[in-house]
Amino acid sequence: MTSSIKKLINKFRKLPGVGQKTAERYAFAVISMSDIEAEEFLNVIREVKDNVKFCIVCGNFTDVEVCDICSVRQSDIITVVAYPKDIAAIEKTHLRTAYHVLHGVLSPLDGKGPDNLRIKELLERLYGDVSEVILATNPDVEGEATAMYIAKLIKPQGIKVTRLAQGISMGSDIEYADEATLSRALETRVVL
Amino acid sequence: MTSSIKKLINKFRKLPGVGQKTAERYAFAVISMSDIEAEEFLNVIREVKDNVKFCIVCGNFTDVEVCDICSVRQSDIITVVAYPKDIAAIEKTHLRTAYHVLHGVLSPLDGKGPDNLRIKELLERLYGDVSEVILATNPDVEGEATAMYIAKLIKPQGIKVTRLAQGISMGSDIEYADEATLSRALETRVVL
Repeated sequence: MTSSIKKLINKFRKLPGVGQKTAERYAFAVISMSDIEAEEFLNVIREVKDNVKFCIVCGNFTDVEVCDICSVRQSDIITVVAYPKDIAAIEKTHLRTAYHVLHGVLSPLDGKGPDNLRIKELLERLYGDVSEVILATNPDVEGEATAMYIAKLIKPQGIKVTRLAQGISMGSDIEYADEATLSRALETRVVL
Repeated sequence: MTSSIKKLINKFRKLPGVGQKTAERYAFAVISMSDIEAEEFLNVIREVKDNVKFCIVCGNFTDVEVCDICSVRQSDIITVVAYPKDIAAIEKTHLRTAYHVLHGVLSPLDGKGPDNLRIKELLERLYGDVSEVILATNPDVEGEATAMYIAKLIKPQGIKVTRLAQGISMGSDIEYADEATLSRALETRVVL
């Protein structure tokens, strides 16, 4: 294989979840692109890197000062997420809230403390007309710790603080649910 | 989501086997790259598109006139493959043969006839010191038809023509083998 193809394969391997074989397929796909297609591909990458910055209100990605969501949506509920990509996931539901991106979770081992997250910016937003803060960090140790930390700061202000429910996935099989998930689903079982 | 991120997601979706969710992950990974990393990524794509051409001997990808393999390897066996990526797969085995890339398979529905493949170039190579031609096209209808077509052209020249063995995959489970594969494995069963 030529060295430039090898270099491209190595670059693709740096994308999340991409192994050698997948990286090879992507590299061959790029080689097979027409020059116009390849040029477009280069241009959109460049455009994203040049234009995408953080919304000054919520911290989501945006091309402009205030993001698409913050500039049009009126909501007294703020959903707090760790990363911008989490907003894309939550927007697939029917809920239409405002957002706040922390840009990480508390992780002492990685040197991420409260000052490295956008917590101060969140607290500043609470002086407005906010009725509820939904903490939508991941249901893992760091996500939980981050949610608990923020909840402690917000609750004294008399604002309702909630957390995503945890339990077995919709459409999944109880047989294959992991122990921790199943335990949590039982503890938080709902009365019908 | 901003329009430039959406455009990037759509570009990633054009890579083989990439759906919406994977494309989103890749786009967010690109956004999270440092400027230097992103620049390197752009450069290797550009380098590949600018430099990679076909080896004038075997048709494999190369940066120069004659590819890495053709310029150093002496072999009287030519392995015929449909696409350059197949060479990468075969090179992972211990066999070290010369190659010939057809750049496709016979596919009347797609308007691919013998003249659209590098068959003439293959025949021209057979005047040298060639003892065997291994036809390593895929074990599907088009791959089989292509192999049969080429075999018919080469055999009269007294050169040994072989085909990759077909059967159940190493390490696979007979229980899950598809009917066609299992039938083929039974028909071509080996005497111990």
